[in-house]
Amino acid sequence: MSFESFFNPKSVAIVGASSQKGKVGYEILSNMISAGYGGKLYPVNNKADEIEGLKCYPDLESIGSVPELVILVIPAKIVPMIMQQCAKLGTKSVIIITAGFKEVGKEGKALEEKVVQIAREAGIRIIGPNCLGIIDTANKLNACFGGDLPDVGGIAYLSQSGALLAAILDIATANKIGFSKLISIGNKADIGELDLIKALANDDETKVIAGYLESITDGDEFVRQAEKISHIKPILLIKSGSTAAGATAASSHTGSLAGSEVAYETAFERAGIIRCESIKQQFDYAQAFSNQPLPKDARVAVITNAGGPGIMAADAIESKGLKFAKLDEKTIEKLGSTLPAAANIHNPIDVLGDSMADRYSFALSTALDDPNVDVVLILLTPQAMTDAKGTAEAIVKISKEKPAKPVLTCFLGANKIAEGVEILRNGKIPQYDSTDGAVATIKVMTEYVRWKSRPKRVVKLFPVNRRKVENIIERHIRQGIREVGETESKEILEAYGFFTPKGSIATTADQAGNIAEQLGFPVVMKIWSPDILHKSDVGGVKVGLKSVQEVKDAFDLMMYRIPKKQPDAHILGVLVQEMCKSGKEVILGMNRDPHFGPLMMFGMGGIMVEVLKDVSFHLAPLTSDEAKQMLIDTKTYKILKGVRGQQGVDIDKIAEGLQRLSQLVTEFPQILEMDINPFVVGPVGSTPIAVDARMSLEV
Amino acid sequence: MSFESFFNPKSVAIVGASSQKGKVGYEILSNMISAGYGGKLYPVNNKADEIEGLKCYPDLESIGSVPELVILVIPAKIVPMIMQQCAKLGTKSVIIITAGFKEVGKEGKALEEKVVQIAREAGIRIIGPNCLGIIDTANKLNACFGGDLPDVGGIAYLSQSGALLAAILDIATANKIGFSKLISIGNKADIGELDLIKALANDDETKVIAGYLESITDGDEFVRQAEKISHIKPILLIKSGSTAAGATAASSHTGSLAGSEVAYETAFERAGIIRCESIKQQFDYAQAFSNQPLPKDARVAVITNAGGPGIMAADAIESKGLKFAKLDEKTIEKLGSTLPAAANIHNPIDVLGDSMADRYSFALSTALDDPNVDVVLILLTPQAMTDAKGTAEAIVKISKEKPAKPVLTCFLGANKIAEGVEILRNGKIPQYDSTDGAVATIKVMTEYVRWKSRPKRVVKLFPVNRRKVENIIERHIRQGIREVGETESKEILEAYGFFTPKGSIATTADQAGNIAEQLGFPVVMKIWSPDILHKSDVGGVKVGLKSVQEVKDAFDLMMYRIPKKQPDAHILGVLVQEMCKSGKEVILGMNRDPHFGPLMMFGMGGIMVEVLKDVSFHLAPLTSDEAKQMLIDTKTYKILKGVRGQQGVDIDKIAEGLQRLSQLVTEFPQILEMDINPFVVGPVGSTPIAVDARMSLEV
Repeated sequence: MSFESFFNPKSVAIVGASSQKGKVGYEILSNMISAGYGGKLYPVNNKADEIEGLKCYPDLESIGSVPELVILVIPAKIVPMIMQQCAKLGTKSVIIITAGFKEVGKEGKALEEKVVQIAREAGIRIIGPNCLGIIDTANKLNACFGGDLPDVGGIAYLSQSGALLAAILDIATANKIGFSKLISIGNKADIGELDLIKALANDDETKVIAGYLESITDGDEFVRQAEKISHIKPILLIKSGSTAAGATAASSHTGSLAGSEVAYETAFERAGIIRCESIKQQFDYAQAFSNQPLPKDARVAVITNAGGPGIMAADAIESKGLKFAKLDEKTIEKLGSTLPAAANIHNPIDVLGDSMADRYSFALSTALDDPNVDVVLILLTPQAMTDAKGTAEAIVKISKEKPAKPVLTCFLGANKIAEGVEILRNGKIPQYDSTDGAVATIKVMTEYVRWKSRPKRVVKLFPVNRRKVENIIERHIRQGIREVGETESKEILEAYGFFTPKGSIATTADQAGNIAEQLGFPVVMKIWSPDILHKSDVGGVKVGLKSVQEVKDAFDLMMYRIPKKQPDAHILGVLVQEMCKSGKEVILGMNRDPHFGPLMMFGMGGIMVEVLKDVSFHLAPLTSDEAKQMLIDTKTYKILKGVRGQQGVDIDKIAEGLQRLSQLVTEFPQILEMDINPFVVGPVGSTPIAVDARMSLEV
Repeated sequence: MSFESFFNPKSVAIVGASSQKGKVGYEILSNMISAGYGGKLYPVNNKADEIEGLKCYPDLESIGSVPELVILVIPAKIVPMIMQQCAKLGTKSVIIITAGFKEVGKEGKALEEKVVQIAREAGIRIIGPNCLGIIDTANKLNACFGGDLPDVGGIAYLSQSGALLAAILDIATANKIGFSKLISIGNKADIGELDLIKALANDDETKVIAGYLESITDGDEFVRQAEKISHIKPILLIKSGSTAAGATAASSHTGSLAGSEVAYETAFERAGIIRCESIKQQFDYAQAFSNQPLPKDARVAVITNAGGPGIMAADAIESKGLKFAKLDEKTIEKLGSTLPAAANIHNPIDVLGDSMADRYSFALSTALDDPNVDVVLILLTPQAMTDAKGTAEAIVKISKEKPAKPVLTCFLGANKIAEGVEILRNGKIPQYDSTDGAVATIKVMTEYVRWKSRPKRVVKLFPVNRRKVENIIERHIRQGIREVGETESKEILEAYGFFTPKGSIATTADQAGNIAEQLGFPVVMKIWSPDILHKSDVGGVKVGLKSVQEVKDAFDLMMYRIPKKQPDAHILGVLVQEMCKSGKEVILGMNRDPHFGPLMMFGMGGIMVEVLKDVSFHLAPLTSDEAKQMLIDTKTYKILKGVRGQQGVDIDKIAEGLQRLSQLVTEFPQILEMDINPFVVGPVGSTPIAVDARMSLEV
């Protein structure tokens, strides 16, 4: 989509414009006028001749030209009719403010579908319905009833909650937070978050894309696109409904279905999206991203006029995994030669309680010159001699003179620092009301830098026998069989380069003995019957059989005992299988998320997964690095590497297994769920074995 | 200490009072006057006859009566002289504002010690030096140069950072946060945090004790006292310097030594102290504790005029482990009969975007009546019809009519909600700028309630042979031996009721065989020499010996080989010891913290402690519940209980072991460090064995 006709329209018609204060049709018209919109503005209302000094038209047609943007503030049931008129007229952009659609139930949903159908046929794009409208500060467009036009700035905001947008506008006005655009996306019947984020990526006014979402419509495509856009500018999102209670509240609110929380986590991580927990946190981050350069690395220098806040900042820096900058010798020397003797010339630089603007200015300038410093955090508490205003001016000046490194401030207080804070805000210096907030912001900035500089994702494609898998899966789907059995699951795995234990079905004790002899001892035996799901429960599994005699005995015992336990079971024989050499057991798995597609799982086997739930997740398709990271992300990764002199296992082979499985489930979207459990892996150079597998299809 | 003469003095002298604006001696006098202090005020300065309309005295003596409180704002070096005058005069309470003492190094420290000595001899109590002073709102006493007298309220604040106190005062004034008392404790040369907290516990004006501390002077006593006080009123503390970087910054700032972070954590937990991470968080909590009743349980009802914030609150409630209240049928019915059809009458109760005060009022009143609701959180975003002021008034009114349950609000916005927020603040309704902040506050309130209602701590005392341990320890200390050897460590453990493996020293192979036969096989053999610390390294440990012959062979091999490896070792023989029956290995340990005394440690043995650092801590002395909690606090506790059909071990016996060790290290403060590793524990009913122990003494 192009933004042009939504955000920079030459003419705007408001259908349902009203002269009655408090009515939405009045608020929007009045907001358009007071924002100073420069284009042509047409109120449409068949009960008025003039509203707010503007000629009022009885209907769209009588305007006599085609308004580029039409805003609808009319009862839901007549929206389709007006949409028809728009179609006839040739308008391509419509904002539907009106509520009473999908969010109110079945009838509303049908109405919404009708509206969308009209739009699709006529090539009309819609924002809404059930929204507050849109704002574009650069074009002085306030087509919204959320509040006054805010300051111009680099933050674009899109919100699935109109009420929240209204609160944000109020907070923004009070704190002079600047925006490029604000969009209330409402029911997103047509234009959704992805369209907007893509358009905002190319919007020169926008430096940061921020938003509040309760659902993401096309998760898979969203991740793909967002990953590209995150390289251009940061995306900061609140995704609510992340808990069961929240999701229930969300679905009763918007009717949208919650995706799985872990899928959202991994999707955002892949896409480089910075997830925020609250509006406050989001604006903490956004003001830094939109106004300051990115830091090269995570080494933070702190300048303070008080010990206490300095210590609190040091605590926060260390506990968040940032680095407390070790100042260069020259810096220390320079600070020492000018600051009073009692000052601390090491990090945190304490310019002392009686510091005026000059010492701050000098310390900041010196710290910015230090090659060991990537970012400077300035703390100020209002003490007897403190000059918050002058200090703020000095900080803005120095930061403009030396713009290569980010500078953040935390002036603690209220009235005594208010003037200073205003100067900082106008001077584009991000200011925080707690050391924690400032340090958390530095943390996400460094994480974003790290994300951006990661190597390009290359997903390796292994040569596989795709046709074979196709055949098996198609046959199952044709026959409506959901679960793929053990033998065929293994055929599929072998077609994708996995090794599975060798073995054959024996129908007599002698045959079992022969098979075992060929495989070599020890062997495993498993009863073979489509009717027996839990083989162990009926005594249908024997492991560690060491001789032909033991194999024969086991065969006969199974044949004698199992029919007694489960008389209706059709027994096909006994599987005699090679037994895996000792190794660690791990689990490779996949669950298909309804929003984001295949979600890969890696788990430590045995007791670890049971006691510690020691698993990690990542969206497919996996790169080699991502597969390895999944191993590293488990709590007991060290066990794979080998501890206490125990030999480690072949990490790369596990990663390869994950990549192969990732390729399989990516190439076959029919696979809904899949587990290789256990996947037995030995020391470096050995071949891991997919001992058992489970797979279900969408039929 | 009594507060009387510090906080409600009938007369105050300010030595170093000044008529020069900006000087501290002026600021304090001026603050005293403008606060409306009702007692007698004596400026003392030999260079002025009158300051700010008050008669000025050349020295304390010439006042002609004894000022109850003396404030010193004079150069550090003449402080001892003036203290002598105070002593002579009979003043008992002195605030020393002056800096230049312990915090500037050796000379300052000596000066401070001199001042304290004068005070001790004369029975004078001191606040400071190096502080901002004190404030008492009820008595209109502003003996402080941090800012104006704040509103009267239930929060007492003590701060080890003067600058932070100044920032807090500024924030408090702007946000109308009420205080009972504020105390800048400075270098705490005499009066420290504990004196103040004890006094504030009995102060009727104070509902909540809050503070910022960089160090705690007498940790052990602090915990004991704070535990009692926390039952009377909540204590909310920021303890900074919790990371290595923070601690370094703190020690360079105040010269105070950092205790171990884990000791602080466990000490605060035992004492019921609510730890805060930032000033903002602290006041988030404090305003609720000081103005609202405590909730009975954790079931939260949410009322909102917007879906988005409702979902965010639901997310926060669930992710913080609180309960999302399930409304009573009657409540739902009542809500349904009055609210519009589109409203959500289940939790979160959505009164809709066009709600005025009436719906909020009705919903709040109804929710407070619901027996399934313990606390109500009200959300408001400023929408077209929203009446923030009227809604705030309604909330204050209903909350006063139904005062049994806590009510918190989160009005999101700024200018549009400002009037409402002021009404809430004046009406003692805690108001938050994010749902997160509100929910975090509810969380700590419920945790505090839980802490208060936990059963009384009863530390069981086991009958032990204390005299025996005394003898061993005293002998070691007399001889300057720091490490207690294996034999005597075990004697000590046996004296405290532990079982250790049976065994004796053999000096010949035959003797070894006989001992083994008596013990029963298998046995363990260990070389016995005071010179060999690492027995395994020289081949001095053999386990699992199953026959007399194996024992004899092992003996002879050790005797042949070890002298070759370590020719200077004096070998006393070989210890032949029973071998533990199979069981789980765990570690029981203790480290004596310099501030808080014996810190007990429990760890899972083997691979768990190595890979997962799976350990937990608690301060001694331990109750039975606390000992069990230490086990539960480990990540792999389930393994002790038994997983995958494996039999569990005797949990109570491990807890008893921890309690016995706790008793030992509490009764013998000479023990600096101690480990029982491994402590082998079997199934319920079996006797655990302390296989090996290590102990070091303070010599």
